[in-house]
Amino acid sequence: VNTERIVATTLSVLLERIVPALEAIVTPAQVLLSSHDDFAKYGSDETEDLVFLPDIVVRPETTEQVSEILKLCYREKVPITPRGGGTGLSGGALPVRGGVVLSLERMNKILEIDKENFFARVQPGVITQTFQETVEAEGLFYPPDPASRGSCTIGGNLAEGAGGPRALKYGVTKDYVHGVEAVLPQGDIVRFGGKLLKDVVGYSVLGLLIGSEGTLAVITEATLRLISLPGYRRTLLVPFTDMAAAARTVPAIMRRGIVPCALEFMEKACIKAIEVHREMKIQHSDAAAQLLIEVDGNDETQLEQELEVIAEECEKENALEVFVAETTAKQNEVWEMRRSAGEAVKSISAYKEEDTVVPRARLPELVEGIHEIAHRWGISIISYGHAGDGNIHCNILKRDLDDGYWNEVLPKAIEEIFRLTVRLGGTISGEHGIGFSQKRYLPIALGHAEIELMKHLKNTFDPLGLLNPGKIFPDS
Amino acid sequence: VNTERIVATTLSVLLERIVPALEAIVTPAQVLLSSHDDFAKYGSDETEDLVFLPDIVVRPETTEQVSEILKLCYREKVPITPRGGGTGLSGGALPVRGGVVLSLERMNKILEIDKENFFARVQPGVITQTFQETVEAEGLFYPPDPASRGSCTIGGNLAEGAGGPRALKYGVTKDYVHGVEAVLPQGDIVRFGGKLLKDVVGYSVLGLLIGSEGTLAVITEATLRLISLPGYRRTLLVPFTDMAAAARTVPAIMRRGIVPCALEFMEKACIKAIEVHREMKIQHSDAAAQLLIEVDGNDETQLEQELEVIAEECEKENALEVFVAETTAKQNEVWEMRRSAGEAVKSISAYKEEDTVVPRARLPELVEGIHEIAHRWGISIISYGHAGDGNIHCNILKRDLDDGYWNEVLPKAIEEIFRLTVRLGGTISGEHGIGFSQKRYLPIALGHAEIELMKHLKNTFDPLGLLNPGKIFPDS
Repeated sequence: VNTERIVATTLSVLLERIVPALEAIVTPAQVLLSSHDDFAKYGSDETEDLVFLPDIVVRPETTEQVSEILKLCYREKVPITPRGGGTGLSGGALPVRGGVVLSLERMNKILEIDKENFFARVQPGVITQTFQETVEAEGLFYPPDPASRGSCTIGGNLAEGAGGPRALKYGVTKDYVHGVEAVLPQGDIVRFGGKLLKDVVGYSVLGLLIGSEGTLAVITEATLRLISLPGYRRTLLVPFTDMAAAARTVPAIMRRGIVPCALEFMEKACIKAIEVHREMKIQHSDAAAQLLIEVDGNDETQLEQELEVIAEECEKENALEVFVAETTAKQNEVWEMRRSAGEAVKSISAYKEEDTVVPRARLPELVEGIHEIAHRWGISIISYGHAGDGNIHCNILKRDLDDGYWNEVLPKAIEEIFRLTVRLGGTISGEHGIGFSQKRYLPIALGHAEIELMKHLKNTFDPLGLLNPGKIFPDS
Repeated sequence: VNTERIVATTLSVLLERIVPALEAIVTPAQVLLSSHDDFAKYGSDETEDLVFLPDIVVRPETTEQVSEILKLCYREKVPITPRGGGTGLSGGALPVRGGVVLSLERMNKILEIDKENFFARVQPGVITQTFQETVEAEGLFYPPDPASRGSCTIGGNLAEGAGGPRALKYGVTKDYVHGVEAVLPQGDIVRFGGKLLKDVVGYSVLGLLIGSEGTLAVITEATLRLISLPGYRRTLLVPFTDMAAAARTVPAIMRRGIVPCALEFMEKACIKAIEVHREMKIQHSDAAAQLLIEVDGNDETQLEQELEVIAEECEKENALEVFVAETTAKQNEVWEMRRSAGEAVKSISAYKEEDTVVPRARLPELVEGIHEIAHRWGISIISYGHAGDGNIHCNILKRDLDDGYWNEVLPKAIEEIFRLTVRLGGTISGEHGIGFSQKRYLPIALGHAEIELMKHLKNTFDPLGLLNPGKIFPDS
């Protein structure tokens, strides 16, 4: 199977043949060339400093336009890369082979909020936070909550299989997608599922599309399950003098029968980076690690009982303090701090972020192992993330290392981190995807037969390998 | 794409070439021929009175044996049909093209219950109820709860995407499967996922395999997520004088912010059938319909409050009584009654069961529409099922209709029921699958492009169409 059968097309041919056809499908204003002011932004996302400029950007408004655009690109053998909010962390939206970027930003309507059935229908370009706030105003709740919620889109969330802090209690994006409309690489429009809690009719193509990183189809509409908005929440911030103690507290809380809606971990260097980046003082910022713990529900008495149990477990591990954010304002402050961790850590120097995930109880071993690897190679690694899910983002920082050493050591350290992760029963990405930046590491997580099967599936959807090419699979 | 490229093989050739090879892979005792006492049972499941005898039954004990068996069958171009507990309701386990039945009954070990990470690893032949009781003894909970739990297997549940009453609150089988080991049609062993709450590495082949009815691969091990066992439950049985009133009560309860762990519906004829079949007297058995409502949780006070709200909503719709099953014995009695509904209704006469599902709030229209169709064609239809999920099983009974009329009218009535279901935003199977008995109706639920894509996927996994042939897709 050859997933990379792209026929080279020169830019002049593209401009002559494709541009007029695209302008006829959408409008001339929605076909952008390199002279356009906004053009550069379509060449990058939030993955390190990677830049790959497309030749053309097109911004459709309807499913039919998406279908026509895909048909055209397929006929002309032009690579086409779908794009949501451009907040991805593995380069999934980068047009690494040039060609057309298909931006879904103008398909940004919330089509329906069905309060009777607890479902919503949305277009892919809706900003996740906008959608969440809209349904919350109706007393409903859409839990998936990536840190980039203020600028990422539902379409991007589906493509990448986005997670976030609430996954521990509420699951990830795929657990809320019950229906999709999508356009296949050759332009066919397909629909699966609906406002249904059960559906076993034929194969779960829907399940296959979620997390396929825009390489199998372009999702043009989603039917998302909603739940009742919990009435109350309680947010704790707990510093520990000992990293391993913080890590041990995570399974200890779960063993008490409590499922927090968030159980986040930040190590000292992360807290310090936030202090610098946000010019603020955080209590106990010299502590080895802090846990952010949140519980929610409809029964305040029960939440108070849960808080007591959690505090008890934290104290058993010699927590320095158990700080309860009493007001909504204080809760938001804690969360803003947590959400800024990525930006703060990445502002220190050039970096590479890894999205390790292990069975929850193996977390202490993972955290310890990462520190050991960092120490051995003389590099700086700062970790934070979703401890309750066993999902830790570790940022490897260049700081003042010279380019030669950095370039030589980085892939070796990453490989060691990933091999450790897999040895602990985990894998190499919990929620960021493989995309472009992680594809060389895929064989650490998956065997030959598994990768070949996935390549066959890609080839089944996209025999010419034109939709979001150069992603997921290692270069051969 | 041709999904039906089976090369005819005569039984004598099979016996001469395949049987000795199978006996070498497993043991002679685990290769059954038609002379074996138990042989007949492998020719049927619980789908109407369908019988398709295989030529050979083989009962492996290890993944490697499954792999060798599939390699052999592929090499010899022999159809092979995997089989779990044989409780399927759409003929998914029937060897409709003969050949080999691959029974997973001897791969029935619970390999691990990991209380730290809330996961279990099991072989496919474990009986669902055995698994549930084993984890419940550890204070853990595996919610998927098909009516056949006493004899169906985890492997069959995964293959069919089994549901059950608890789906409303807890989701269906796919929501608990986080890892699989499976054997592809040509014998390759593949592994996806693990004890992980997040995993976005490559395509979700796991998601595609669940509900694929044993046509894409044979699942040989599953990693299942567990949750904490709720401490308390309350079970209600509520008779209504008016069917539509019972149906309206379902979304009314949900609108009050309560998510029952079961919200089941039985119409009068179903209750009457249970009375006859089980030789028992049910209170208010003349009521038009009864709802079985169950709530669970860890806070008794909250459950009592929820009961009050539910009772209030039932009374608004003029419920005849709100019977609370106070003791575990009473609760079990109510559930035994509910679980016997299928058997009771089907014991009346020849029948055909349909597994309709619609958005929950459309349930009154579905129930009313089914009655209208029954009335118009002069046939008897008895409905019961998972009202909270909008998933209603309707059994069309032959009673004393003559064969000619029955055979003529049945497919027309079914088609009308399914077209109604789809018009209401629903589909033609919520949890029973398409299998053999429903495949002719697939085009009512899915369009041409969707079916073609699914056929391409089948062909990608199984180019010779040997694994569980003659299923899902309509005969061309």
